[in-house]
Amino acid sequence: MSKKVKIVEVGPRDGLQNEMKTLSVTDRVEFIQRLVKSGLKFVEGGSFVSPKAIPQMMDSEGVWEGIKNLKEDFSFLVPNERGLERAIFAKVKSISVFTATSNEFNQKNIGMSVKESLTVIKDLVPKAKEKLKKVRIRGYISTAFGCPYEGPQKPHATVKILNDLFRMGCDEVSIGDTIGVAHPEDVKKMIGLLRRNKHFKKIALHFHDTRGMALVNIKTALDLGIRIFDSAIGGLGGCPYATGSSGNVATEEVIWLLKGYGFSTGVSLEDLLETSKWIETKIERRLRSKLYLSQPKRLFYGGRGRES
Amino acid sequence: MSKKVKIVEVGPRDGLQNEMKTLSVTDRVEFIQRLVKSGLKFVEGGSFVSPKAIPQMMDSEGVWEGIKNLKEDFSFLVPNERGLERAIFAKVKSISVFTATSNEFNQKNIGMSVKESLTVIKDLVPKAKEKLKKVRIRGYISTAFGCPYEGPQKPHATVKILNDLFRMGCDEVSIGDTIGVAHPEDVKKMIGLLRRNKHFKKIALHFHDTRGMALVNIKTALDLGIRIFDSAIGGLGGCPYATGSSGNVATEEVIWLLKGYGFSTGVSLEDLLETSKWIETKIERRLRSKLYLSQPKRLFYGGRGRES
Repeated sequence: MSKKVKIVEVGPRDGLQNEMKTLSVTDRVEFIQRLVKSGLKFVEGGSFVSPKAIPQMMDSEGVWEGIKNLKEDFSFLVPNERGLERAIFAKVKSISVFTATSNEFNQKNIGMSVKESLTVIKDLVPKAKEKLKKVRIRGYISTAFGCPYEGPQKPHATVKILNDLFRMGCDEVSIGDTIGVAHPEDVKKMIGLLRRNKHFKKIALHFHDTRGMALVNIKTALDLGIRIFDSAIGGLGGCPYATGSSGNVATEEVIWLLKGYGFSTGVSLEDLLETSKWIETKIERRLRSKLYLSQPKRLFYGGRGRES
Repeated sequence: MSKKVKIVEVGPRDGLQNEMKTLSVTDRVEFIQRLVKSGLKFVEGGSFVSPKAIPQMMDSEGVWEGIKNLKEDFSFLVPNERGLERAIFAKVKSISVFTATSNEFNQKNIGMSVKESLTVIKDLVPKAKEKLKKVRIRGYISTAFGCPYEGPQKPHATVKILNDLFRMGCDEVSIGDTIGVAHPEDVKKMIGLLRRNKHFKKIALHFHDTRGMALVNIKTALDLGIRIFDSAIGGLGGCPYATGSSGNVATEEVIWLLKGYGFSTGVSLEDLLETSKWIETKIERRLRSKLYLSQPKRLFYGGRGRES
């Protein structure tokens, strides 16, 4: 199986939008520049949502303005028609569209049922492709394993939505464990249903580390052939002391795990840890990434003696 | 392979001895009583070391006095002759002896080279067996994967010491990733060297979660047949904000992982989370266990829909 893994850094969008502190456009641009400098090639840049709803993502146009000359891939979340207009006006090169398995979650999150959001996406995708030349489109399926309101979700619901999203023209679909309840056995079951899917190589997994299971889930998915993972530097997203909150799996821990298996990532761990330190001063709270918190002076693996 | 796993709860010893705050004997007794009530059957009770060296473990005799009528197995660390005298006087039923792969670590930790400590153990074990009827003896090998001073450690060093410890009469040997640098590939290599060992079923693995790898390491070891793991409730041990510090893998996360795989543990997760909450007030700092911090209102797994 391939020894190459694609990491989609979601810190600047999924991470920051769940932080208490709102960062300036300047800081968000610097954040992304630092991430890119460490070797990350796919980064979520922001979100074309209402600044009233999510102030943390305000003026994502300004962020794009600051990074658009870089060669890496920066995607911007487009929740609806209004968002697409902004994306088209800004001439971004990658967009993301969003749905979930849970109606209640989707309603609270973007004000639509799952069915309604799929109708919107079906309309958005061709428009985006028409107006934004060669645009890359990523689909997100949230609450794929569990929903804070509805509880456990059936994997078949995800498979159905995933097929819909690819049929509508998405280039990649990310299956999200939004609240971090997936157990490796759930991951195994989900992937089992997808292994013969013709889009298998374009499926990403997106884990939150709410219960500390994210890396075991990634290891399980790696063994089953998945090669695209979303993560956020430092484990950004969600205040550690709020009930039920959860951050994304930490990029530095994912990279550490992957390097130890011999996967090529092209990412510098030292640079990532520097950026974690920097972003921590900006969000004004301690991060939760254990690798970061341990402040390793030397990055060596046990036993085999290889340095990272 | 067996669906039964033995968990050795090391919070009251390995955990507390690395906390800034020293708990009273009364609190340590209550702590152990709570752990036992949650279903844990093997608990480290304390350590017969000098209270000047490790004040957190002072009057371990008093702790034993408070728990000795319980039917569970409580082991007490015995670093030397003086410690053994105290263990004999207190009439404990289980003791632990301690060495490491790294000379420098062992010297700083117990003031002896590895060779010297093995000579001491060789002397202690028969004395313990003579004076304490049916005593159970556990050997610890620290820094088995890496040492803060010497760096990566060769797995062969661990295998050699492990064989020595069993030969000297240990009933169980715990291989410790004291500073949490083991990668699953290191764990795989280590277990590969031990799979044909006649004592394989009596080998425990002891992970610290310094780099967030502990649960992946446990999963890897489970797949390779290991059925004894050490853990500490809440991920006790080591201040989260001190450079290079690291707590044990959190018992509640290990139990959550195991239950999801269908292993029988006999432990109540709800009770564990209650005890994490209680111990947090005693050590006066936030724990680092992500499962605990997420304060789950409902303990459900994703996808398959099973409640814990």
